[in-house]
Amino acid sequence: MTKPLRLGIAGLGTVGAGVLKIVRQKANALTQRSGRPIEVVAVSARNRDKDRGVPLTSYGWEDDPVTLATRDDVDIFVELMGGSDGPAKAATEAALKAGKDVVTANKALLAHHGQDLAALAEANGSVLRFEAAVAGGIPVIKALTEGLAGNDITRVMGVMNGTCNYILTRMEDGGLSYEEAFDEADDLGFLEADPQLDVGGIDAGHKLSLLASIAYGTQVAFDAVELEGIGQVTIEDIRQAADMGYRIKLLGVSRMTGRGLEQSMAPCLVPATSPLGQLQGGTNMVVIEGDQVGQIVMRGAGAGEGPTASAVMGDVMDIARGLRVTTFGQPASSLVAATSAKATTPAAYYMRLALLDKPGALAKVATVLGEAGVSIDRMRQYQHAADTAPVLIVTHKTTRAALDTAIGGMADTGVVSGEPVALRIEEV
Amino acid sequence: MTKPLRLGIAGLGTVGAGVLKIVRQKANALTQRSGRPIEVVAVSARNRDKDRGVPLTSYGWEDDPVTLATRDDVDIFVELMGGSDGPAKAATEAALKAGKDVVTANKALLAHHGQDLAALAEANGSVLRFEAAVAGGIPVIKALTEGLAGNDITRVMGVMNGTCNYILTRMEDGGLSYEEAFDEADDLGFLEADPQLDVGGIDAGHKLSLLASIAYGTQVAFDAVELEGIGQVTIEDIRQAADMGYRIKLLGVSRMTGRGLEQSMAPCLVPATSPLGQLQGGTNMVVIEGDQVGQIVMRGAGAGEGPTASAVMGDVMDIARGLRVTTFGQPASSLVAATSAKATTPAAYYMRLALLDKPGALAKVATVLGEAGVSIDRMRQYQHAADTAPVLIVTHKTTRAALDTAIGGMADTGVVSGEPVALRIEEV
Repeated sequence: MTKPLRLGIAGLGTVGAGVLKIVRQKANALTQRSGRPIEVVAVSARNRDKDRGVPLTSYGWEDDPVTLATRDDVDIFVELMGGSDGPAKAATEAALKAGKDVVTANKALLAHHGQDLAALAEANGSVLRFEAAVAGGIPVIKALTEGLAGNDITRVMGVMNGTCNYILTRMEDGGLSYEEAFDEADDLGFLEADPQLDVGGIDAGHKLSLLASIAYGTQVAFDAVELEGIGQVTIEDIRQAADMGYRIKLLGVSRMTGRGLEQSMAPCLVPATSPLGQLQGGTNMVVIEGDQVGQIVMRGAGAGEGPTASAVMGDVMDIARGLRVTTFGQPASSLVAATSAKATTPAAYYMRLALLDKPGALAKVATVLGEAGVSIDRMRQYQHAADTAPVLIVTHKTTRAALDTAIGGMADTGVVSGEPVALRIEEV
Repeated sequence: MTKPLRLGIAGLGTVGAGVLKIVRQKANALTQRSGRPIEVVAVSARNRDKDRGVPLTSYGWEDDPVTLATRDDVDIFVELMGGSDGPAKAATEAALKAGKDVVTANKALLAHHGQDLAALAEANGSVLRFEAAVAGGIPVIKALTEGLAGNDITRVMGVMNGTCNYILTRMEDGGLSYEEAFDEADDLGFLEADPQLDVGGIDAGHKLSLLASIAYGTQVAFDAVELEGIGQVTIEDIRQAADMGYRIKLLGVSRMTGRGLEQSMAPCLVPATSPLGQLQGGTNMVVIEGDQVGQIVMRGAGAGEGPTASAVMGDVMDIARGLRVTTFGQPASSLVAATSAKATTPAAYYMRLALLDKPGALAKVATVLGEAGVSIDRMRQYQHAADTAPVLIVTHKTTRAALDTAIGGMADTGVVSGEPVALRIEEV
């Protein structure tokens, strides 16, 4: 009989409980597939007495996750506590230093400390894996790191925050305002304790930065992700976009350009008939484009007990089978500190602005756009009751810099009320 | 410097040439990612002098692939010749017996001899991988074998023959007859030398049987796949399906039921708005459903130089990184010889039949359906000029057995001309 692989699990929320259930219920299948019995030897959580729907009596208990992480009888430390610092970081570091392998679902930890942790893992001969940190149950880290390892990756896109996609979907199909859809998501328990992590795009930005590191062989650069949340998106934008054949998604896009690494997480328009446009509700999607493989689209549940536990178990099974891939697909020391570039790849933009009801106002806006080198594909002024008129503009392909110049110029015309909304139209 | 990993490649069609190009052009990146230089030491093909767009002078040459497969300086034998028997089988066996690892794109070889080859690989401590054999560039073998290894797989579906999907798409969007679309695909070089491999569903059936083996831990059972090609599908069926919100796809479905393993590759109706329904042209899609992960959808190019070479390189890189996963995800000896079951899972069906223009004819058909226990959801008789009237029926959920009883009974009524068409409506 091969030696069992022994897990220590820190954090027993829904995902941790899900992992415990899988290990208990599928013991035979897991052993057959990996060649080794998989066992949980000990666990750690904040509250020992909480009912998690799974008995804990057969496992050792540690109040301190650092103690759990360094137990002699633990081979893999499974970190499911969350948080970019504090106990999650301390315990992960302790485990790696003790030569343990680590499996984590913690996107914030990796986005902030991935480079150091990957280097620490390699220095200690440990493996650090994080499939569950990105896009829930979709095995996208594996696809990008391993299956597509023969490609130069040219673009990675993703809708990776189910809560935002739920809110945007409900605004569209339920005719809800942003605030109403937000409240609905909150009532359903979809929002993080700090909702800005979701609707501000931070959580999805963490994930994008991890994918970019693997895709382009660069050090994780979360701070360089251009972040824009969905709070500015109105029901009017969603309707106008739909009218033109688009849907609005909180879309992450990263690409390596001659000027550097572009990473943005922002509401974008995508064709309604595209796979990204078809994505409804809380489902996630990642699109990977490689020079050899063309476009690969992966879709699945981005959160929840089963899908996230499935991803954790994928990593555990890999380690049980002897896989020793580096965290970001190549040695940490070889990851390049990429120059971060503001998104400069030309794109068409959707703009919405409120025009003061003055003679020649529309002409002034058109002139400002023209002077900035932004040409107009379509422009509509709507009927209005108030003293401002909504104007929608779709530009031809232009740079964000040119667009920002035009937006700056509009303020000086004195005919535009408030800040114009500008959303990129991403070709997918 | 780590020892290089040395490839011997047999078969230098588009895929073989694609692999040579990747190894030449991406040498540094591949070394960085895998930790070892990847080299091609020798090749074999039928014609040494053909121009393949890549110089062969730096590689050794073997006329006989078996000799190539057993060369002392070859670590991985890359089999890209094709064919379920003959040289491909002989060389693969020789390589495995010599303790070489094998990477192949050969679905026919695996579908017919996968069990024996997997056992041979294990007996010799070799790894046999076949990502490129299923769904081209989509890393679906990896996802199913590794990423989703913590799941009990409940259903696997796939549109995995780009040629068939191209023909069906062109019938729908170009208004072409089956014959016209077939000829167009032929002119474009999309068809195999024996077109029945494509349009008869054999090629896609091979792929489905390989996925099923991994998904359910069963021995490959290609002979048990219920095969039905697309030759019976008419433009009328496609239009009627579209009118009801469906598209017709050559869809592979496998599921493990209490009665045994169901595997079918047949034209099915799927909702037009579903990911499968949205799939246009030559693109492939695989849908995997697991008890933990829910539904995972993967979409990408199913053929072509780059995508297939990408899949081959994924396997090569895995071996370079030290991955030693068994061929079908668990030891060959533990794969069960599954009882094969005719598809018994109840489904709704679409039927089209030609009714002779006689009084009471429709009533007779309805009676036969009722007597077989098949209840009708929708029924339409169309305007007609000829002496037969087209009748379309959508049934409520029923078994294929009950439907076949009804179809048998229809022949006895004397009011139905020819054989009715019956296509399953798959819930996706």
